[in-house]
Amino acid sequence: MFDINDICIIGGDERQAYLGALLAKDGKTVTYFALEKCGEAQPDYASLRFAVKGCDAVILPMPLTKDGKTLYAPLSDIEIPLDEELAKSLSGKRVFCSYGEKLTATGDYKSAFVYDYLAREELAVLNAVPTAEGALAAAITSSGKTLHKSRCLVAGFGRIGKLLSRDLYALGAGVTVSARKPGDLAMITACGYTAVKTAALEGSGKYDFIFNTIPSMIFGEKTLEKTAGGVVIDLASKPGGVDLEACKRLGINGFAALSLPGRTAPQTAAGIIKETICNITREDDP
Amino acid sequence: MFDINDICIIGGDERQAYLGALLAKDGKTVTYFALEKCGEAQPDYASLRFAVKGCDAVILPMPLTKDGKTLYAPLSDIEIPLDEELAKSLSGKRVFCSYGEKLTATGDYKSAFVYDYLAREELAVLNAVPTAEGALAAAITSSGKTLHKSRCLVAGFGRIGKLLSRDLYALGAGVTVSARKPGDLAMITACGYTAVKTAALEGSGKYDFIFNTIPSMIFGEKTLEKTAGGVVIDLASKPGGVDLEACKRLGINGFAALSLPGRTAPQTAAGIIKETICNITREDDP
Amino acid sequence: MFDINDICIIGGDERQAYLGALLAKDGKTVTYFALEKCGEAQPDYASLRFAVKGCDAVILPMPLTKDGKTLYAPLSDIEIPLDEELAKSLSGKRVFCSYGEKLTATGDYKSAFVYDYLAREELAVLNAVPTAEGALAAAITSSGKTLHKSRCLVAGFGRIGKLLSRDLYALGAGVTVSARKPGDLAMITACGYTAVKTAALEGSGKYDFIFNTIPSMIFGEKTLEKTAGGVVIDLASKPGGVDLEACKRLGINGFAALSLPGRTAPQTAAGIIKETICNITREDDP
Amino acid sequence: MFDINDICIIGGDERQAYLGALLAKDGKTVTYFALEKCGEAQPDYASLRFAVKGCDAVILPMPLTKDGKTLYAPLSDIEIPLDEELAKSLSGKRVFCSYGEKLTATGDYKSAFVYDYLAREELAVLNAVPTAEGALAAAITSSGKTLHKSRCLVAGFGRIGKLLSRDLYALGAGVTVSARKPGDLAMITACGYTAVKTAALEGSGKYDFIFNTIPSMIFGEKTLEKTAGGVVIDLASKPGGVDLEACKRLGINGFAALSLPGRTAPQTAAGIIKETICNITREDDP
Repeated sequence: MFDINDICIIGGDERQAYLGALLAKDGKTVTYFALEKCGEAQPDYASLRFAVKGCDAVILPMPLTKDGKTLYAPLSDIEIPLDEELAKSLSGKRVFCSYGEKLTATGDYKSAFVYDYLAREELAVLNAVPTAEGALAAAITSSGKTLHKSRCLVAGFGRIGKLLSRDLYALGAGVTVSARKPGDLAMITACGYTAVKTAALEGSGKYDFIFNTIPSMIFGEKTLEKTAGGVVIDLASKPGGVDLEACKRLGINGFAALSLPGRTAPQTAAGIIKETICNITREDDP
Repeated sequence: MFDINDICIIGGDERQAYLGALLAKDGKTVTYFALEKCGEAQPDYASLRFAVKGCDAVILPMPLTKDGKTLYAPLSDIEIPLDEELAKSLSGKRVFCSYGEKLTATGDYKSAFVYDYLAREELAVLNAVPTAEGALAAAITSSGKTLHKSRCLVAGFGRIGKLLSRDLYALGAGVTVSARKPGDLAMITACGYTAVKTAALEGSGKYDFIFNTIPSMIFGEKTLEKTAGGVVIDLASKPGGVDLEACKRLGINGFAALSLPGRTAPQTAAGIIKETICNITREDDP
Repeated sequence: MFDINDICIIGGDERQAYLGALLAKDGKTVTYFALEKCGEAQPDYASLRFAVKGCDAVILPMPLTKDGKTLYAPLSDIEIPLDEELAKSLSGKRVFCSYGEKLTATGDYKSAFVYDYLAREELAVLNAVPTAEGALAAAITSSGKTLHKSRCLVAGFGRIGKLLSRDLYALGAGVTVSARKPGDLAMITACGYTAVKTAALEGSGKYDFIFNTIPSMIFGEKTLEKTAGGVVIDLASKPGGVDLEACKRLGINGFAALSLPGRTAPQTAAGIIKETICNITREDDP
Repeated sequence: MFDINDICIIGGDERQAYLGALLAKDGKTVTYFALEKCGEAQPDYASLRFAVKGCDAVILPMPLTKDGKTLYAPLSDIEIPLDEELAKSLSGKRVFCSYGEKLTATGDYKSAFVYDYLAREELAVLNAVPTAEGALAAAITSSGKTLHKSRCLVAGFGRIGKLLSRDLYALGAGVTVSARKPGDLAMITACGYTAVKTAALEGSGKYDFIFNTIPSMIFGEKTLEKTAGGVVIDLASKPGGVDLEACKRLGINGFAALSLPGRTAPQTAAGIIKETICNITREDDP
């Protein structure tokens, strides 16, 4: 267990600004860097070194980087290379980041305390809520049919699959969920949905809505031809599990819906990051 | 009870094309007029008189008119005045329309059989489903917060209020519903929501999401100031029940979401119109 | 609007004792009469006249009477005739009762203020909650099958039908609901259930569980033969809507489950009566 | 994968009779032994040896034994010792049983093919459905309050905890669920319930209904004093997790509700065993 009081938030999208506001509300001192285009985050530091000076904790964005070289900072003109210099600046501090392994591979972080909030189970679970809601909104707005009384397929019964199938069922959809393990198939049945083995998807009919949550190529051209009767939404992180090129060829409305928490519910997503960071501070030091 | 077999669909938006497809699937002969910009509806008649010739039934669009003078036909360059000539063309036929009173006021329809599908209770009820889904999507995409764990207020416990509050509750929102009658307030409680008298709305706290379904000015400036803590969506038909100008002044994200069935689920909406027309044909002649 | 402060509770089952406790918790002075076998209610008055002396309000039980002649008082050896003397004793007081018309027919109540709480819509609605829960428990314990994945029929879409079908659906049952009006049938569909016209019940297949809520003979021998595939529970007040004799002849497990609020949830039922009485006091005098 | 065609069902309660009926419906030849008091199962074999002769599969009951020495056979006067002779009789056959290890410890089963259906994940999951329903019925009938609007605590978020909390939430209860892992606590929150760490149960308030699913002593006297405000139901298998003696001392209505699938839904439970056995036959030989 440890305390963090002076926190510097570096880079990221509007979630990080919301995150800062939540931490400030808890009585923390919050400074921002590389967020100057975000109205609410008011960074007034000339350099990262000044910004982090006096801080005991630093929060890096989600994702950590998009180009593999610089910190993800879409609301800033400042470029922050992921390099040895950054590592030096963060020396001795608590560093909360996503993709911790990637970060520590870019410099010497041995003298810092690096925590990967993205690796935490509770963040993944709680993020499944805005993901499921974002998927519902995408489905409703992209089809001429209602979810109610439609035939929906959710591929995969992990965190997102569990919450999304629950939401769809509650909205009156006919819900089929695919999984591989007998125990999962039984739980799908127990929840009131129709269970189908992932391997038997092709023979299970056509669906008005397909939601894929499995990050491997489940919906290739052949499977799409047999199952897609409307909209196909890929929720699995890249490279995803739906052949979107095949969708085009087949005239199917297929698309990926990624990073839904940050896009459709940044305020809630910020709260989730905050809660996860708080959980980390409440646990034993690593 | 009566049969309709040769049906002419005149004007309207893409719902009418879907409607034609559904009727054709049931074995009806369907012709279209004033829908030539809609790919699927293939009208090839030079004039309305030719188009309706041989038909025993005619379906007019929803809404009937937007300008009060001509039939609503956004997918056509043809202008069809609501006049005595139209009435003459439809003489002797079954005419299914919305706003039947408005139609019959524009000409002599005594020799036709006019049915108002919009006046039917089942159409109103079934349309509440796509309306509720459209409202969910609007809420999800317009706020930085999830519905889950949010504070939602549904003003009014009619058809839309009933279904929308049910959906919100299922998605994990804290749901407060306002009504006036003790019986309705009791049913709101029985459904697991928090009941509040419409007159006592102002003292009931702030809400992340407000959905108004009451077609009279409930959310004026003063009430908005006390209750609006996020998004305010007006689902009530014009003139609505939310002072959108006051929203602007107060910096509140308030907007009207109208005609949701036709906009977010035209295919389902077409099915609802079809079912309603079928119900009418199954009943006794008027 | 008016206040009641000194309240005498006369007769009734354990609900009335719970009711007294709730009123006492609200700061009311509560005395009991004809409840001496109920541990918690401590009546120590020699006669009804003494008991009601000083009271401004009297609460009579639900039901008012079982034999038509004396007040319902199963927890007492005292017999209280419904007669002119009772009316005289209650002169000038607020009298809250069930079956107000029956009461006022037994004596001269013109000098009392008689309120019929049983006639209130909110009491009927709120009582539907314990009724639905009691029906669930009766169904679960009387059948070898789970409600989950069973075929359930709810006859009638009134207060009990609405809540019970909602509960069954939530527990994973396949729910069919019967009604007569197109608007109700549409709402049944909108809620995600299967709608069937009451007149067409016979052709709708066999059900593992049938719940009747309609107080007229819906399930006669012929209908039972065609629809009853398991348990048949009659929730409609007498004379009910299920021919229980025919059930016996057909070897069907059919039974009536009446007065469920008082039987399975007397504490909640007492709270409902209390709330209804409070609502009455908050309204204008009659 | 293998076929079973001639099946002998030995001992057990009425579930086994239902199981036989289901298998017969699938075209299997079914014989019974040690079930002679069950009307529907017609055993007409003088000895177990004759009964199993010609069978390729044998199904033993759940539980396997109650006294540790003889097969569980409450519907029979025949006593079947779990001994070497039984093992010999079953030689060469497919033996489906519960507690496979206990069985194989009682004799030489090397020449038989022993499958433990009770050890299968899908059976445990599917049995959680009748368990949850049985728990609902027990709660409804043992308390003066409705589940609706009550405060419920479900201790443990395993199979039963997941389904039961879902059911309670759907019935309008306020649901708190306890767990230990941050990921589980997050999923509890994501499902719309209140999450509480098992270690922090005592400080979480009083509950109208407590359902324990954890098979270790969670609810000792001290915890009961702080949390039990009504009924306490222990669903965990022996030795359970509620100190029932302490309940008595504290005047709390506490009781264990065990073997609910077999007791409240034997027909469904039989179907679950059948499905599990079918799954086993569909998989590779061990």
